[in-house]
Amino acid sequence: MAALTVGFVGLGSMGRGMAANLVRSGFSVQVWNRSPGPVKALVEQGARPAADLAGIFGNDIVVSMLADDRAVESNLHDPGLLEGARARLHINMATISLPLARRAAELHAEHKIGYLAAPVLGRAEVAEAGKLNILAAGPDELLEQAEPLFAAMGQRTWRLGSEPHQANAAKISANFLLACAIESLAEATSLAEASGVKPADLVELLTNTLFPGPAYTGYGSMISERRYEPAGFRLVLGMKDVNLALEAGGEQHVPLPFGGVLRDAFLDAVAHGDADRDWSAVAEVARRRAGLD
Amino acid sequence: MAALTVGFVGLGSMGRGMAANLVRSGFSVQVWNRSPGPVKALVEQGARPAADLAGIFGNDIVVSMLADDRAVESNLHDPGLLEGARARLHINMATISLPLARRAAELHAEHKIGYLAAPVLGRAEVAEAGKLNILAAGPDELLEQAEPLFAAMGQRTWRLGSEPHQANAAKISANFLLACAIESLAEATSLAEASGVKPADLVELLTNTLFPGPAYTGYGSMISERRYEPAGFRLVLGMKDVNLALEAGGEQHVPLPFGGVLRDAFLDAVAHGDADRDWSAVAEVARRRAGLD
Amino acid sequence: MAALTVGFVGLGSMGRGMAANLVRSGFSVQVWNRSPGPVKALVEQGARPAADLAGIFGNDIVVSMLADDRAVESNLHDPGLLEGARARLHINMATISLPLARRAAELHAEHKIGYLAAPVLGRAEVAEAGKLNILAAGPDELLEQAEPLFAAMGQRTWRLGSEPHQANAAKISANFLLACAIESLAEATSLAEASGVKPADLVELLTNTLFPGPAYTGYGSMISERRYEPAGFRLVLGMKDVNLALEAGGEQHVPLPFGGVLRDAFLDAVAHGDADRDWSAVAEVARRRAGLD
Amino acid sequence: MAALTVGFVGLGSMGRGMAANLVRSGFSVQVWNRSPGPVKALVEQGARPAADLAGIFGNDIVVSMLADDRAVESNLHDPGLLEGARARLHINMATISLPLARRAAELHAEHKIGYLAAPVLGRAEVAEAGKLNILAAGPDELLEQAEPLFAAMGQRTWRLGSEPHQANAAKISANFLLACAIESLAEATSLAEASGVKPADLVELLTNTLFPGPAYTGYGSMISERRYEPAGFRLVLGMKDVNLALEAGGEQHVPLPFGGVLRDAFLDAVAHGDADRDWSAVAEVARRRAGLD
Repeated sequence: MAALTVGFVGLGSMGRGMAANLVRSGFSVQVWNRSPGPVKALVEQGARPAADLAGIFGNDIVVSMLADDRAVESNLHDPGLLEGARARLHINMATISLPLARRAAELHAEHKIGYLAAPVLGRAEVAEAGKLNILAAGPDELLEQAEPLFAAMGQRTWRLGSEPHQANAAKISANFLLACAIESLAEATSLAEASGVKPADLVELLTNTLFPGPAYTGYGSMISERRYEPAGFRLVLGMKDVNLALEAGGEQHVPLPFGGVLRDAFLDAVAHGDADRDWSAVAEVARRRAGLD
Repeated sequence: MAALTVGFVGLGSMGRGMAANLVRSGFSVQVWNRSPGPVKALVEQGARPAADLAGIFGNDIVVSMLADDRAVESNLHDPGLLEGARARLHINMATISLPLARRAAELHAEHKIGYLAAPVLGRAEVAEAGKLNILAAGPDELLEQAEPLFAAMGQRTWRLGSEPHQANAAKISANFLLACAIESLAEATSLAEASGVKPADLVELLTNTLFPGPAYTGYGSMISERRYEPAGFRLVLGMKDVNLALEAGGEQHVPLPFGGVLRDAFLDAVAHGDADRDWSAVAEVARRRAGLD
Repeated sequence: MAALTVGFVGLGSMGRGMAANLVRSGFSVQVWNRSPGPVKALVEQGARPAADLAGIFGNDIVVSMLADDRAVESNLHDPGLLEGARARLHINMATISLPLARRAAELHAEHKIGYLAAPVLGRAEVAEAGKLNILAAGPDELLEQAEPLFAAMGQRTWRLGSEPHQANAAKISANFLLACAIESLAEATSLAEASGVKPADLVELLTNTLFPGPAYTGYGSMISERRYEPAGFRLVLGMKDVNLALEAGGEQHVPLPFGGVLRDAFLDAVAHGDADRDWSAVAEVARRRAGLD
Repeated sequence: MAALTVGFVGLGSMGRGMAANLVRSGFSVQVWNRSPGPVKALVEQGARPAADLAGIFGNDIVVSMLADDRAVESNLHDPGLLEGARARLHINMATISLPLARRAAELHAEHKIGYLAAPVLGRAEVAEAGKLNILAAGPDELLEQAEPLFAAMGQRTWRLGSEPHQANAAKISANFLLACAIESLAEATSLAEASGVKPADLVELLTNTLFPGPAYTGYGSMISERRYEPAGFRLVLGMKDVNLALEAGGEQHVPLPFGGVLRDAFLDAVAHGDADRDWSAVAEVARRRAGLD
């Protein structure tokens, strides 16, 4: 049996590590990226360059890791591209909206190409280490086919249903919860500080008792130290994800009052120049509201 | 040197375990409670009964664990009681408001009785096991004196400052964060459910990745199973604590937009008959808003 | 038949005009105020000074116009005062909380003194002109007795029920709506300005079409001109009234999401030094959130 | 000089009255509508039918009154249509988003067709009576050209700037304020009712004092009578307009906390089946939150 060939689209900070791990695991990987730099780096690690997206869709399986709805739509939703594709499966690992997730599933079905959604939890360094948590949804038989690739890129795969958009919904919900944790910490540390308690003391107490784990520990220390650079996740992207949650809630008629508060806090942060700092910089909004400093 | 004598006020679900651990650790403990039942139980474990609160304040150290501001004010803020007290230190372990915490510190200073605030994290079973987290604040020399008692009741003492109200501020902030985590989970699981993801799947994913620890794990499973009884912490008490945070924010001019949302959600829950269920029943409000069911 | 005698308590900016109108209408008015200046002024207009509050309660009818719950409780809820009172009716025209309104009604009933609540709509100059709108509630026969006094002070009496607290609830609701109108204008003018529309143009359009009347016209022009001084109604008092609405909602389990937003906006304004400007200065919070200026 | 010819697109409940008034004022009007019924009615009143949209754009001036962004984009933003147009001016009277308003202005500029935005305030019966308030923006010389048409359709034209989107921003702000007034009334009447005050009494008081005018009077009586049918303005359209405000705020980084509350309340209403009732039915959400009934 010939080795499975994989076409990989999107070598951003996440995608490059993911593609490298596929190469490392023995897949025959062909890569494409809008800008050529990352392609060169991957080729040095053993990948083949693709002349264009059509080339990518000539592999057995396509994996894409693009930035957002717009990038997915403009690059991958070209009917000509899917029409001529040889690929039998496309695994879309981007964090996209539910409406787009549903349209993508329909579009691939029309062209008889298997389609899975598999967004991930984890930053660039986790992607590099092959330790991502992969949130996957789609038909079981496709999930089985994808499993060797997931195993190369992640530490665990979470199956969330047989319709691809379910994985996107879970990813959106997870990011929504992260944003809520950040705003909660922002409000609580502002309250503590105004009441004479050191934010760092509060965070140490919390993360050693009720709230262990990476989210509260990481964001808690960033907020208590007011250290928002370098950005682990840019605030403007966090706002995009909060808007995805609100959009999903709008579609399904699910009011999200915390989501509305988050939206306003992120807008306030962007209006004050913090778009490119870490999204935990939303804590500065809470401080400003309280007149701290 | 004669053994230190301890007067203990308030044998509710928390206080009885705490007092029992003091007895077990060899302190000479005298107890008082509004209703006699718990007194009898403690006496069987080796405590002495007190005829009245004045008797309690005849010990070296007084420990009190009352329900709320009202109970503290009506029982302990009697000038006659403090006037005649022999006790050199009162450790108030209740979750009370910042204004009352400040008044209590002043009142004890006027009567030259040492005063510490030491609210705790942990439920009745944790109190019974002597494994509480104790949030303590007040003058260092008093904290030293209290440490043997804290060691008997808790697994760790967190020192939060030299003014007692700082410990209360930290406790209020911690409970505020718990309430935020519950509402976040409520909104996220409603969104997930409406989008076709099983709440239990989302919770399992979250608590194994971003949000390990007792808060998300415990409340996550209660919410995804819609199991709000028996109440670990009654919703109406949770609402009281959210109001303490809002009151503290009001006093210090710290807006708490998540707090406002929480307040409304708890009121909605109470208006629908859930006052005595676990406070995670606030998730039913999120479901009702979305028309789920 | 001897002329009706009236004891009037509270000669602040509102009370002095109201008392003067009672004098002008021929009532025999005796006045009391914490500070003596306003008493002197009223005496020059024909009122008699009272040595103390007991003197005031020696008249047929007592009218009080105090600042808030605290002033009412500390001045009027002295059991000795009511015990020895000759007055058959007390008309409390202050804006007070619903719990206090209920307690006041009970307390007067115990002492067999009639009790009405009659808070007003209108500023100092309206009080002076005798053109207040009077929101009255209480037993019908007492309202009949009070009508001549109301006629002297107001342009119209609105009867809101047979229990005094109903008038307070209506007053609290009216002020809540004013605060909502201000915040609405604040958000809408910020949005307009950021989108290139002059706030003054928007306000002119609105107040000539959908929103005529004093609230939108007055606050609209203050906000579009950013002219918050002199204060028609101090922001910190507006915050107090919003808190009365939230407290009433808390008591009756009525969530008020707009109320929570208002509370935070007022706290933000106070944290930024605007406590003593007109409450329409809450519009500066909306501007700050948006980074305008 | 030949009479000015006008092409009119969109004969919905608003457009039919507006077109009829243009006919009545002597303009030579040609009409087009997706469904043929309204065309027939207008032709009976003296208009000429157009075979297609290209025919409409063969007139001197085009007036369009379509439902929303989608209708405007799908009908009017066809490059071929504008390419072949003889019209020198297009007056777009729809309530559309700011991004679309900007794109429309650019698109018409590219095709050298004048473009004005002129959304209106007023319902179908006001349109029929020719008494609309017209919110107009665009180059002065074009506004001059449009004035005779505006005079035929409206009672007053409000000029809001030289860039068309400014009129859309004003319209969005006005509708946002209406929605805020409705939610304010909803919360206040729920609070009043729970406190024992009849909503109708509160509304009568308010609309005779602080809040005269059509908005509070009309919505106040609908809410106090809980009479939401027939719909003057369907709730789902109101939600669309709130979303336009939030979208505009998102574009300009203007947080709108009242807007977030509105969004959630409308979603809650839609989730409970009230999409097609009048948008004042959002008051039922406030009642439900409070457990009234």
